[in-house]
Amino acid sequence: MKNPNWNSISLKPGERLDELQRNGYVIIQDQERFCFGMDAVLLSGFARVKDGGSVLDMGTGTGIIPILLEAKTNASHLTGLEIQPDSADMARRSVALNGLEEKISIVEGDIKEAAGLFPAASFDVVTCNPPYMVGGHGLTNPEAPKAIARHEVKCTFEDVAAQAAKLLKPGGNFFLVHRPFRLAEIIVTLARYRLEPKRMQLVYPFVDKEPNMVLLEANRGGRSRLKVEKPLIVYREPGIYTDEIYDIYGY
Amino acid sequence: MKNPNWNSISLKPGERLDELQRNGYVIIQDQERFCFGMDAVLLSGFARVKDGGSVLDMGTGTGIIPILLEAKTNASHLTGLEIQPDSADMARRSVALNGLEEKISIVEGDIKEAAGLFPAASFDVVTCNPPYMVGGHGLTNPEAPKAIARHEVKCTFEDVAAQAAKLLKPGGNFFLVHRPFRLAEIIVTLARYRLEPKRMQLVYPFVDKEPNMVLLEANRGGRSRLKVEKPLIVYREPGIYTDEIYDIYGY
Repeated sequence: MKNPNWNSISLKPGERLDELQRNGYVIIQDQERFCFGMDAVLLSGFARVKDGGSVLDMGTGTGIIPILLEAKTNASHLTGLEIQPDSADMARRSVALNGLEEKISIVEGDIKEAAGLFPAASFDVVTCNPPYMVGGHGLTNPEAPKAIARHEVKCTFEDVAAQAAKLLKPGGNFFLVHRPFRLAEIIVTLARYRLEPKRMQLVYPFVDKEPNMVLLEANRGGRSRLKVEKPLIVYREPGIYTDEIYDIYGY
Repeated sequence: MKNPNWNSISLKPGERLDELQRNGYVIIQDQERFCFGMDAVLLSGFARVKDGGSVLDMGTGTGIIPILLEAKTNASHLTGLEIQPDSADMARRSVALNGLEEKISIVEGDIKEAAGLFPAASFDVVTCNPPYMVGGHGLTNPEAPKAIARHEVKCTFEDVAAQAAKLLKPGGNFFLVHRPFRLAEIIVTLARYRLEPKRMQLVYPFVDKEPNMVLLEANRGGRSRLKVEKPLIVYREPGIYTDEIYDIYGY
């Protein structure tokens, strides 16, 4: 299904248009800045949004997560918060290109101040694909878009958890993807903000390899009981995805 | 290798003798009380003891973990702490039967008072295969040996963590096996006692099933960084273990 808005497209230098495998949606990306990875796709597959639910994606980048979640769920409205003006602009143009202006809002702003940008306890779901690496020490250019996406230059995981806790409705769910090496710290931090881990899935590149991602669902104010899902194995053999990954990608 | 002490064996009614697959060792068990399961074997495979290290196993039951660790490591001495007199007696007789009286001590006592039974910061390693189920509510006989082994009748996980933290040397390691549904609570509790989770492995019965055990290593006073191991899959197909499980069992 070719989107009729595609004719009106004007890409900036360095930008490219990628097709998503959902509803004919596309996304504008710039390889020099940051392109979405499997983590964003797996997070959108892992997240659950009840029909009519409202969603906030913190640090939305090019808007990949709200666009995928719009395709996969019956959310009433999705908001993407992004601190980098150029990324927010790309996200807004992707939203328009997909004809989703009524469903997805892109807000330019700082995660650390998110609770001042939106009413308290106003979202059913918060999602986040945060920077994985601690600090920005040793980076030659900590203000580079890729550095901001990958390193905790602009905000820490604690900032994310603190703001998510304020913005979620009681009983609302926070979905995140992160690196397994930070799992213990993440669980302790979530618990400190009364975000109780309820569901977890480890993503193993191969069945005999260490996991390189962890998907987590935490519930605001829930009681302690974690459901650990079956392993999510990415590759059946080198270069060939497992059926489950093809499903999540929508092939 | 047949152990020369076997001739002197006298089993009590209901007891049976099981061969372990290590050094010709055997263990006395009573099916009416509690027989060790795969969790104890996997914990002894997961635990690491440096040469000459001292080990305390909290809630040792029939002594399965110190006996397996004696076979698998070069620990200088291993101590099993057990609250139930009959279990402690069986453990002591198993130790004698294997000729290990110089290497393994069985101490009758309460985990909750462990820090009063041994010098503070005196062990390199503490192990525990604790009761998995919260509380003893609804049990017809909470004093039954199986109930004590499975339910937190005599001690909670917090009791275990608090005592382990006191008894471990700084930098010493705590190894435990538990149910994944309690993982978030366990990590938060460990962190509260400065036992930092450093290594974790999830045990999945089949590659496409949820895990039913989690193995954890925590370091007293360590900094936060978790190594999540490759998945430990138990069955290749129904009734047939994976090679890794056969290795751990010593076949």
